[in-house]
Amino acid sequence: MSDERIKTVVEDLERTLLVFIRKHQITHDEYRHATDLLVSSITAGEDSLLLDVFFAAEATDIGNLGRKASPQAIEGPFYVPGAPALEPPYIVPQRPNEGGDPLYFSGCVTGADGEALACTEMDFWQADADGLYSNIHPGIPDWNLRGRFRTDAQGRFEVKTILPPPYEIPKNGPAGRLLSVLGRHFFRPAHLHVKLRHSGYKELTSQIYFQGSDYIDSDVANAVRDGLVVPLRRKDSASELAARHLQRAYWEVRYDFALMPD
Amino acid sequence: MSDERIKTVVEDLERTLLVFIRKHQITHDEYRHATDLLVSSITAGEDSLLLDVFFAAEATDIGNLGRKASPQAIEGPFYVPGAPALEPPYIVPQRPNEGGDPLYFSGCVTGADGEALACTEMDFWQADADGLYSNIHPGIPDWNLRGRFRTDAQGRFEVKTILPPPYEIPKNGPAGRLLSVLGRHFFRPAHLHVKLRHSGYKELTSQIYFQGSDYIDSDVANAVRDGLVVPLRRKDSASELAARHLQRAYWEVRYDFALMPD
Repeated sequence: MSDERIKTVVEDLERTLLVFIRKHQITHDEYRHATDLLVSSITAGEDSLLLDVFFAAEATDIGNLGRKASPQAIEGPFYVPGAPALEPPYIVPQRPNEGGDPLYFSGCVTGADGEALACTEMDFWQADADGLYSNIHPGIPDWNLRGRFRTDAQGRFEVKTILPPPYEIPKNGPAGRLLSVLGRHFFRPAHLHVKLRHSGYKELTSQIYFQGSDYIDSDVANAVRDGLVVPLRRKDSASELAARHLQRAYWEVRYDFALMPD
Repeated sequence: MSDERIKTVVEDLERTLLVFIRKHQITHDEYRHATDLLVSSITAGEDSLLLDVFFAAEATDIGNLGRKASPQAIEGPFYVPGAPALEPPYIVPQRPNEGGDPLYFSGCVTGADGEALACTEMDFWQADADGLYSNIHPGIPDWNLRGRFRTDAQGRFEVKTILPPPYEIPKNGPAGRLLSVLGRHFFRPAHLHVKLRHSGYKELTSQIYFQGSDYIDSDVANAVRDGLVVPLRRKDSASELAARHLQRAYWEVRYDFALMPD
């Protein structure tokens, strides 16, 4: 980010917010109320959550304007680099009694012109059935439901994981209290996270959402985009269970990714 | 601050900033750059400095619209309640070798209709000759250049202190680095702080600036207001020195305060 760009943006942000303060006749007490909320949210360990629920998705959209490849999604606060490299057939690390229905996530990775991208690294993470993330929330083995796997020679992938529930952002801290006053709920719809990397192409940060799932139209972070929502198919017939060697109903979701050349 | 007011302001702030992000086509990297700056400024102990230099003064002005009494000023980050109560003749606590020329700060306190306000508590604080504040910056005795004194039966006060230099905000932290990129300096013009309290009247937070002093027209916090700037008179004649029993030149500044009824 060049100094010139910073100067342009910050000076206009200053003007914009001074006009805003005048327009609403914000008093010093009200201003201090706002800065105290921001300071307490950050010192309470919420990092930029208070801003992210309102603004992160919009800033991500700019990168999607006129984009021919798959849309980018917000990274969210819980990506951790260095997840274990998995061996096929891919099953993300999980506890023996991991909660949540089995989910098979599959698809293809191509370039923007349709060429299959073999050996694309897919760096995957998601919440568990309690809506919690390993390496972040306590009491979960490191790297649980996190892993890196690769597309095959035809650019295809399939990984077995579990179907996550909606994710509830921290509601008892400063950000949550503000959302309460605004009359908003605290949920993001269920989603999978993945970053795709292939040399010669731009890294893609994606999130996959499921059609018709709870909060899909009222994401607290307003980050759901049409191009990221796909059907979730329930499988529970005898032949389907037999094909997967499972005794219980499972789910399948498919998403095909297209990467932009570098 | 009512929930309805919070909702109105925050929802419009959200709309305003979403429009701003679109207008400038802020990318996710740029957005994250901004939130990282804010988070690092706060976790570096700068509290809301990054916002205050841009916005605190504007929010203070709203309280001055149509005001008949003395204008309010920003409190600044270094007020500490509980300063020692002084006995007349008032001299603020200082070290034997305290740097800076002697300064006599005097005036009257009245109500908005001109009635003298005897026994008004004046809670005073200022920087030392190095631009540092006791109880905040290390190596200075507690309550140095801080004290509470009272107006006399005619609402008059006079206190002896030292003439402070311009105040330089922290320049080596995240807020300072942003100001550097914007091409701004780090100084506030020299000033005295005082809070005035009298039962039946609203507490007034004031700052007194000196005509013609350095940075008076380019305050980094943009907080100087006409009604807060007064002449600083240098006294160095033999008769003036004799009258004050001083061997060195000193300064006088006068400011008359008017308080709003409660």
